[in-house]
Amino acid sequence: MQKAISQAVIKRLPRYYRYLGELMDEGIERISSSELSQRMKVTASQIRQDLNNFGGFGHQGYGYHVPTLYNEIGNLLGVNDHHNMIIIGAGNLGRALANYENFSKRGTSIIGVFDNDPSVIGSVTGKHQIKDIKGVEAFVKEHGVDIAAICIPKSAAGEVAKNLAGLGVRAFWNFSHMDLELPEEYIVENVHLSESLMQISYMIQDQDKKREKDK
Amino acid sequence: MQKAISQAVIKRLPRYYRYLGELMDEGIERISSSELSQRMKVTASQIRQDLNNFGGFGHQGYGYHVPTLYNEIGNLLGVNDHHNMIIIGAGNLGRALANYENFSKRGTSIIGVFDNDPSVIGSVTGKHQIKDIKGVEAFVKEHGVDIAAICIPKSAAGEVAKNLAGLGVRAFWNFSHMDLELPEEYIVENVHLSESLMQISYMIQDQDKKREKDK
Repeated sequence: MQKAISQAVIKRLPRYYRYLGELMDEGIERISSSELSQRMKVTASQIRQDLNNFGGFGHQGYGYHVPTLYNEIGNLLGVNDHHNMIIIGAGNLGRALANYENFSKRGTSIIGVFDNDPSVIGSVTGKHQIKDIKGVEAFVKEHGVDIAAICIPKSAAGEVAKNLAGLGVRAFWNFSHMDLELPEEYIVENVHLSESLMQISYMIQDQDKKREKDK
Repeated sequence: MQKAISQAVIKRLPRYYRYLGELMDEGIERISSSELSQRMKVTASQIRQDLNNFGGFGHQGYGYHVPTLYNEIGNLLGVNDHHNMIIIGAGNLGRALANYENFSKRGTSIIGVFDNDPSVIGSVTGKHQIKDIKGVEAFVKEHGVDIAAICIPKSAAGEVAKNLAGLGVRAFWNFSHMDLELPEEYIVENVHLSESLMQISYMIQDQDKKREKDK
């Protein structure tokens, strides 16, 4: 029986996967939780706790077997499954995503890039010829799409997402500056860039306050 | 005396700010925590708790005064301060950031976009003419730069960030596929896109497992 895994642990898994991938590239076969802890700058006890959620792949005194742990976490992350993704919006951000080579290594193939701008439709970005958004319904029905990356302004994002959800797209990677209103069973992962930037300005201000106080 | 605010609350602040901005746009002056709760799909008690961290801007029975709360949270987020940002790397992602209009409304001005590719240097993206990375040191010294957005491959990101840190850049918005190794006093906000996508593939797989079990 697998117990429910906390959202916080799940959020940390891709980072473990990245570090283990680097260890693989370096040809390292075994690593102790304390060595991994130094590399990742988290405590060794956090690492042990996190990995224990998955039955723990470590053996007392021997550390972790890197390739096993890498594969197991990859499986948990669905890296060895195959998911199709389309990108809605071929502005700079949509193009940036369309040209990421890392995604396919992690199990997600970009199978279409769509826009509504006639001056953009038909042009090529990376390996993709940009398609007319009018054809997205037929495309989704024909190819089956798991994930849609929403890279359009918020004025259009909500409606487009709703339509795609109705066509069977189950997961949304949302870059628009709004929260998508979709029934609970849909998977939504938000990347709100201006909110990420605001964290930085908060931290700058917070640092200034502390420095002022320490004077 | 202001008490220390948890990282979790700080992460939620920009979202409050966004919703309050929308209420302002709609001309709504007052809102109760339960109405705000419905809009934002978080519990009213969470809202009250979060905002109590800042002395609480609500009055029992009257709800929150939207413009006051909006401004106060904006102040906390440093929106009314002014920060200069440069973008390192004028690929699609760097260009996407360079063309975001929202950032300046939130207190951050993009004052330079840099690349090392001769075929790109001198060309224009949005309001910015792309500058030669060789000139970045002189530029930072002349203009003062608070934030650098790192939009280059991981092979170069670490060194560039270290150099900029040495020149007085205090905050890094890191889009490269690695963790920047900088002394603790530097502010680093990571946006790891492929890790964000892996969350989605995890959730798809998790949903599949649950559905399989429920059959």
